[in-house]
Amino acid sequence: MTIPRLSIWGLTGIPEVQPGDDLVALIAEAAAVQAAGDPAGALADGDILVVTSKIVSKAEGRQVPASEREKAISEDTVRIVAERVHLGGTTKIVETRQGLIMAAAGIDMSNVPEGVALRLPEDPDRSARALCAGLREQLGVAVGIIITDTIGRPWRVGQTDVAIGAAGLQLTDDLRGDVDANGRPLHVTVAVLADELAGAADLVKGKTNGIPVAVIRGMARLVTGLETAGARSLVRAVDDDMFRFGSAEAYRLGYEAAMAEIKAERRQSSAQESSS
Amino acid sequence: MTIPRLSIWGLTGIPEVQPGDDLVALIAEAAAVQAAGDPAGALADGDILVVTSKIVSKAEGRQVPASEREKAISEDTVRIVAERVHLGGTTKIVETRQGLIMAAAGIDMSNVPEGVALRLPEDPDRSARALCAGLREQLGVAVGIIITDTIGRPWRVGQTDVAIGAAGLQLTDDLRGDVDANGRPLHVTVAVLADELAGAADLVKGKTNGIPVAVIRGMARLVTGLETAGARSLVRAVDDDMFRFGSAEAYRLGYEAAMAEIKAERRQSSAQESSS
Repeated sequence: MTIPRLSIWGLTGIPEVQPGDDLVALIAEAAAVQAAGDPAGALADGDILVVTSKIVSKAEGRQVPASEREKAISEDTVRIVAERVHLGGTTKIVETRQGLIMAAAGIDMSNVPEGVALRLPEDPDRSARALCAGLREQLGVAVGIIITDTIGRPWRVGQTDVAIGAAGLQLTDDLRGDVDANGRPLHVTVAVLADELAGAADLVKGKTNGIPVAVIRGMARLVTGLETAGARSLVRAVDDDMFRFGSAEAYRLGYEAAMAEIKAERRQSSAQESSS
Repeated sequence: MTIPRLSIWGLTGIPEVQPGDDLVALIAEAAAVQAAGDPAGALADGDILVVTSKIVSKAEGRQVPASEREKAISEDTVRIVAERVHLGGTTKIVETRQGLIMAAAGIDMSNVPEGVALRLPEDPDRSARALCAGLREQLGVAVGIIITDTIGRPWRVGQTDVAIGAAGLQLTDDLRGDVDANGRPLHVTVAVLADELAGAADLVKGKTNGIPVAVIRGMARLVTGLETAGARSLVRAVDDDMFRFGSAEAYRLGYEAAMAEIKAERRQSSAQESSS
């Protein structure tokens, strides 16, 4: 039996990214320099490049003055999901324009220059497609692209990286209808490999060591043409979302609905009394 | 700059696990056979072994007859978080005895023999500690252990693997108070590496190819003694949980609370009327 095997490494040497920078050129250059020192590391067909959204935002000029952070959060928010006031301030979990559910609409002030806040890429799938097409053309190898951000999750502490943009690769193994080794239906329905790849890449990129891109080798079976669905397809449809609101918010909506019903009832019965 | 690098591979050759099997022996034997064919793959200090909970459950005799699946779900449920009836049946998201929020209390009928359902390990951290201590003793190398299960998440489609048990390794990078390359506070608070390792291992294990264990090499900095906190520490405390109930469930609680208030008010005012 062939042993399934993955290699993951960080792409070093990418400089601090500025608005208007050509990310394709910066990544291709860093990959070329790294390959010169380690020929086995030259990018090859089937490699997946996992890119931190922060450098995509920086290249796309998504910086806003830190003083306009709150305004930017409001602009990038489609819907408030949950809100909680605590000692350190207010945690606001929102749905962003990109369809992501995350704190502060993903607007971040770490790993950016002083006085600057950074919005998410406007359309991370579009950014991923541009990167993928550009790198495939420039390097002559069929790579896949995942753009990541770091997000929290209910029920579990802390954050992990997930795929917020993607191009040139299949993002999931859809196992619905498949069977296990015993011919029994699988419990799992859709294995979301793109999020697992995003998390795996974070292990070599880290948050503090300035490595914004990782290369994953060994998942060539996932790499496709550029027409494949992007990471937006990983967002759960509203009708399937059992956690559309925070518990406190949903409780309040239920409470208010009951009070409104009672009020309407009273209005009706007092109207009947006065007309009788 | 050193290039950070990870290797991840599947441990092949583990037979179908039976109740009472010695997992330490089975894993050590499979690792020895694999190392004979590939000496670089011999387990070494700092390797992390990621083990599918299914084989842990099987070895621990957590099988129940399929006809008792519903009873087992009830027994393993501490609290119903959300419930939804749909065409295929009822989806019940519950908190399990292990503190996990997941569908059907994690009781699974795939990759088990016909007529059998499988409960989660009773205490996955305890199982991980036993595996870790046993493998360290038998192999003479300091490995870390993560036990995984496949779980869904709100807001995003499908499932990914997370750590439900762990021993002998640090599970997170706690970045609270740390600063970025520019000296600015980090947005991220706690990077949950254990879940990212669990997901990374799933990429080589898969769901259908019968590889229940993966080895991750390159994260030796995480490997510790056996006293480190287990995966139970990754469960968010109830007081921090903004999504303690499904939206429909919380809405209903709010609605019922308002109705109960009104009823109490009416009872009080009719009591006053009759006494006046």
